[in-house]
Amino acid sequence: MYFASDNTAGVAPEILEALGRASTGYALGYGNDEWTKRVEQRFAEIFERELAVFLVPTGTVANSLALAHLTPPWGAVLCHAESHVATDECGAPEFFGGGIKLVGLAGAGSKISAATLRAALTGQWGGPHHVSPAALSLSQATESGTIYRVAEIRELSEIARARGVAVHMDGARIGNALARMNVSPAEATWKAGVDVLSFGATKGGAMGAEAVIFFDPKRGANMQDRRKRGGALASKHRFIAAQIEAFLANDLWMTLARHANAMADALAAGLAAAGCKPVWPVEANEVFAPITLEADKRLKAAGAMYYPWPSEGMSVGADKMLVRLVTSFQTTKDDVDRFLALVGSE
Amino acid sequence: MYFASDNTAGVAPEILEALGRASTGYALGYGNDEWTKRVEQRFAEIFERELAVFLVPTGTVANSLALAHLTPPWGAVLCHAESHVATDECGAPEFFGGGIKLVGLAGAGSKISAATLRAALTGQWGGPHHVSPAALSLSQATESGTIYRVAEIRELSEIARARGVAVHMDGARIGNALARMNVSPAEATWKAGVDVLSFGATKGGAMGAEAVIFFDPKRGANMQDRRKRGGALASKHRFIAAQIEAFLANDLWMTLARHANAMADALAAGLAAAGCKPVWPVEANEVFAPITLEADKRLKAAGAMYYPWPSEGMSVGADKMLVRLVTSFQTTKDDVDRFLALVGSE
Amino acid sequence: MYFASDNTAGVAPEILEALGRASTGYALGYGNDEWTKRVEQRFAEIFERELAVFLVPTGTVANSLALAHLTPPWGAVLCHAESHVATDECGAPEFFGGGIKLVGLAGAGSKISAATLRAALTGQWGGPHHVSPAALSLSQATESGTIYRVAEIRELSEIARARGVAVHMDGARIGNALARMNVSPAEATWKAGVDVLSFGATKGGAMGAEAVIFFDPKRGANMQDRRKRGGALASKHRFIAAQIEAFLANDLWMTLARHANAMADALAAGLAAAGCKPVWPVEANEVFAPITLEADKRLKAAGAMYYPWPSEGMSVGADKMLVRLVTSFQTTKDDVDRFLALVGSE
Amino acid sequence: MYFASDNTAGVAPEILEALGRASTGYALGYGNDEWTKRVEQRFAEIFERELAVFLVPTGTVANSLALAHLTPPWGAVLCHAESHVATDECGAPEFFGGGIKLVGLAGAGSKISAATLRAALTGQWGGPHHVSPAALSLSQATESGTIYRVAEIRELSEIARARGVAVHMDGARIGNALARMNVSPAEATWKAGVDVLSFGATKGGAMGAEAVIFFDPKRGANMQDRRKRGGALASKHRFIAAQIEAFLANDLWMTLARHANAMADALAAGLAAAGCKPVWPVEANEVFAPITLEADKRLKAAGAMYYPWPSEGMSVGADKMLVRLVTSFQTTKDDVDRFLALVGSE
Repeated sequence: MYFASDNTAGVAPEILEALGRASTGYALGYGNDEWTKRVEQRFAEIFERELAVFLVPTGTVANSLALAHLTPPWGAVLCHAESHVATDECGAPEFFGGGIKLVGLAGAGSKISAATLRAALTGQWGGPHHVSPAALSLSQATESGTIYRVAEIRELSEIARARGVAVHMDGARIGNALARMNVSPAEATWKAGVDVLSFGATKGGAMGAEAVIFFDPKRGANMQDRRKRGGALASKHRFIAAQIEAFLANDLWMTLARHANAMADALAAGLAAAGCKPVWPVEANEVFAPITLEADKRLKAAGAMYYPWPSEGMSVGADKMLVRLVTSFQTTKDDVDRFLALVGSE
Repeated sequence: MYFASDNTAGVAPEILEALGRASTGYALGYGNDEWTKRVEQRFAEIFERELAVFLVPTGTVANSLALAHLTPPWGAVLCHAESHVATDECGAPEFFGGGIKLVGLAGAGSKISAATLRAALTGQWGGPHHVSPAALSLSQATESGTIYRVAEIRELSEIARARGVAVHMDGARIGNALARMNVSPAEATWKAGVDVLSFGATKGGAMGAEAVIFFDPKRGANMQDRRKRGGALASKHRFIAAQIEAFLANDLWMTLARHANAMADALAAGLAAAGCKPVWPVEANEVFAPITLEADKRLKAAGAMYYPWPSEGMSVGADKMLVRLVTSFQTTKDDVDRFLALVGSE
Repeated sequence: MYFASDNTAGVAPEILEALGRASTGYALGYGNDEWTKRVEQRFAEIFERELAVFLVPTGTVANSLALAHLTPPWGAVLCHAESHVATDECGAPEFFGGGIKLVGLAGAGSKISAATLRAALTGQWGGPHHVSPAALSLSQATESGTIYRVAEIRELSEIARARGVAVHMDGARIGNALARMNVSPAEATWKAGVDVLSFGATKGGAMGAEAVIFFDPKRGANMQDRRKRGGALASKHRFIAAQIEAFLANDLWMTLARHANAMADALAAGLAAAGCKPVWPVEANEVFAPITLEADKRLKAAGAMYYPWPSEGMSVGADKMLVRLVTSFQTTKDDVDRFLALVGSE
Repeated sequence: MYFASDNTAGVAPEILEALGRASTGYALGYGNDEWTKRVEQRFAEIFERELAVFLVPTGTVANSLALAHLTPPWGAVLCHAESHVATDECGAPEFFGGGIKLVGLAGAGSKISAATLRAALTGQWGGPHHVSPAALSLSQATESGTIYRVAEIRELSEIARARGVAVHMDGARIGNALARMNVSPAEATWKAGVDVLSFGATKGGAMGAEAVIFFDPKRGANMQDRRKRGGALASKHRFIAAQIEAFLANDLWMTLARHANAMADALAAGLAAAGCKPVWPVEANEVFAPITLEADKRLKAAGAMYYPWPSEGMSVGADKMLVRLVTSFQTTKDDVDRFLALVGSE
């Protein structure tokens, strides 16, 4: 019953095997290898267009490099106030961007609405006194387990681009979002106005492998320099590429994401049935639900792992607490059933 | 015959197996796992003292975080002019350090001599007009395949520390250096005055795993913040820890390093016998030797991989070229023999 | 009728004369001159303690150097959401701090309340995932022309310091605040818990001269290096010192500030009498008042200079607009009377 | 006998008077004033072309902003190893450039030769491993009091530009250089290939006023943001503009520079006659000459001010020392004569 985070899971067996296969023989370092070439090719196919790909070992560095590449030092990134880039990366985007400013916008379920974005962009911006909005960063799925639908992405992108603001998508859980929407990767990204995507594989089932994807390859010029001086160019690069190759092969990433989502759905349904209805739509692999303090005790005693997740301004009653439950490719139906049994046994 | 670099090798089987074992079950992310705890404990044993360890995915980020932690923005790092930190990291230490200055010192075989360091420290330093020397960075082994002996490290450290300059060791190939000297890790590092060590495992046989080690744990305060905002904190951290755990277990790292060194020795001996005496002492796993242009053609035709390595101010004659040959844990005696046969077959 | 800003005024005659006197003869550059020594001495007397002073040419650089010195790169500065450092310096503190985060707090009249600060400090802070609060920055006077009273400063400082958070005061208009409160500089700063003060002279009547004052001189260690590499060490430093010397001599700064405050008071009284009561207490040299659109037309036609100042969430009626009026040492009673006549002539 | 530096002089009377005149009345801050517009216009006339001008208070910030604007974070600035930007600004260009690398080239008399530049550019450059050369910075006059002639600037610029390297000129003493060469400002700058000029007025006779001039105005896009966030946008901007306006009016800058140069010539001639021939050509307002230790004692006793200036690798004999003598607009013939009398009285 390990629902603390999807990064507590291991590595999908197909990916582990790919690492083993990649370890035979020799290959040039720093991305000059066949695995990397094949991954680049594969991404171009999946996204149905020419693009520029940069593989990196962590999600933090993927987001930070992407935002720093889109934003001049005097620029601002508009993002949700609860977004990972704004709150959970210890200022990494600010560091990589040479002191850029992340401007947090409000919005229910960790989503930015079109109205909020429009209002934000009418504020005082621009030099010499004010920073200039340069990028909009959307988390897909969000920190509340919700997702941006294609029409929403398109509307936000249009507002942003009309102001010369580029669109970044933090896709640490993009597989979960795509699996839910059942739209093509292209439709949910560049065709809807996304300029740069942090494509996440680690949470989805890899060991440590992320990709920064520029849908306009020219925008990726000099990213290789930025990645290297950002300490994020792996010397035995083929092992990052091999992870992603296996992740993408035979639609493994979608299979894994669908499983995680299904486990979240099962949790959500069971919790609702037990009177603990999730507070936000369960659209990816995260469930935020109020459970009783009694249930919490029982669950903890039984070894369940998850975090309390107090939400500012949201009251769930004195005898309840809001918790976050994250499922992964590794979550079993048995885990879910045992968890639900403990929740509802009062 | 793959002598291009030690990062062209794969992963040692013991390490691959450890990754597989680590992938079962769940573990908290970001270093809050048992593998990480065990690695920290193991390093303390190996180095015979309390210390602070920070695992990271690349050597560039290990060096950059270490140097940034030792050096205020108005500080300078003294290093060899040919050192990896100065020439091959695209300015990563400067970036991580907020614009610190790397001051390259001269020296045969990529080694800094005590006299050179002393002279450098008598220059114009200190605020407000000049940067202040804050760290000395020694590469072990060096970019020329030479090593600093314990007495040399001690002398350089004493000179540095007398000026308040901390001592950093870029140990991307520290295993090779230790294997050659046959001294304990403690003797060759903190007992000789090293304050911070970038401990390399990737080149030695891991997939992508390095450690920044502060011998005085207090010096490592806030490194966890710097690492995170440097994009170098792995979410599935146990997989970096598992690599290093296997690398250290049963002295695997020393076994692998000794093999690589032995292969370099065999190359060096054969080359010398063929009239292509290495130009610098072969003290680790790199051989720099002049080969004839004819031999180069034959080797290339046979698929041998290596880089030409012109050395400023060193002439090897019009019909020869200086090449760099790097061995690894994966190099076979057969590779070496075939290479030597092609060199000497004229 | 020039109420656009206090930086539209010229230079107080006493200060101009001091510049002329300082221009005779020679003096060593970079602060090694007698003017600088005397200013340091004078500040120590005025603030009744040993301190460290660093003179700089602009207020932006004074604030940025001060905040960067108090805040590690992984740190946060808590400040009012409308504060100058947060909104009007184009990200300068973020740049000087190597990517620090400025966290904007809410509060009426641009003031942070104790309750707000307390609540802010109970949030999620600290590494490795979150930035750490390192400094509280208070604007004195604020962007709304209000001031922090001594008891308020003390309460806020106690809350901050209890959390290890240093207290910075942006004193671009500290003279106006002190003149209003009629307390000693010491009482309103370090005795109330302020660690570092950006002491402003430019807006008060100088040409371009500010001082960063560390009340604990040890905290100012290496600020000379930071100032130099921040481009803020004047070579003919005596001319910044001479400005401040004259500003401080014979209490000129207080005389000038009292005059500016009196002019603001006269404006406020007249506006209130004309039915345009200022929306925030007039406690320094700024008045924020709603005037009719008709009055605005008349004023503009007569050449009056001031800025509209829409305040988020504050409605002043469809036929009125909120404007900001800033007085200075140079403002005349005649200016004020003419302005008021035009406001009220309906 | 104040030869310590040209920044020990005061302010030219014409400039002081201009400051007084500028102080009457009101003017918008931050460069939105008539003085600034006139200065921009005047520079365009003097340099015979459209250009973009940014006034700043110090030479350090002028150079740092200019180099940061020309150089991406992964770029390098090629400059003389003894240049002010490389040695005397405490790493300011590195800071402003987000960690750029300054690569010091050798050359007699602090000048870079075409051959040296050509050789430097054939080295290992470019991503992802190496930084990329982005700017060449030439000091005019140099730190050794020599100057680059127009043909030399043109040759160096051609070499640089052929590699996509922009050309910056640190013109802290450009007036002295132009006065010596008797060529037009245009000929010695953009017509010879200079892209950006740090135009110095402070050393020439102003109080604290420098200009960054982009000869291609488009290159200056967003410099206003960089200047502001670099803390270098003066609020009472007209007072920097007024200094430069007076400096440029009636060729005052040339008159002042010619005087300083003539005083240096007189010193040089007298020293040569006394057997203390300057070691580098005296082409601006600096003289580097060996004087006897006895003369040094006499001069010091008489209150003469100057710095010893040991030059690496240059021996002037055991009984002599190399000193630097800097003249300024304020130096008198009497100062020179007294100095020479003391030198030669043995």
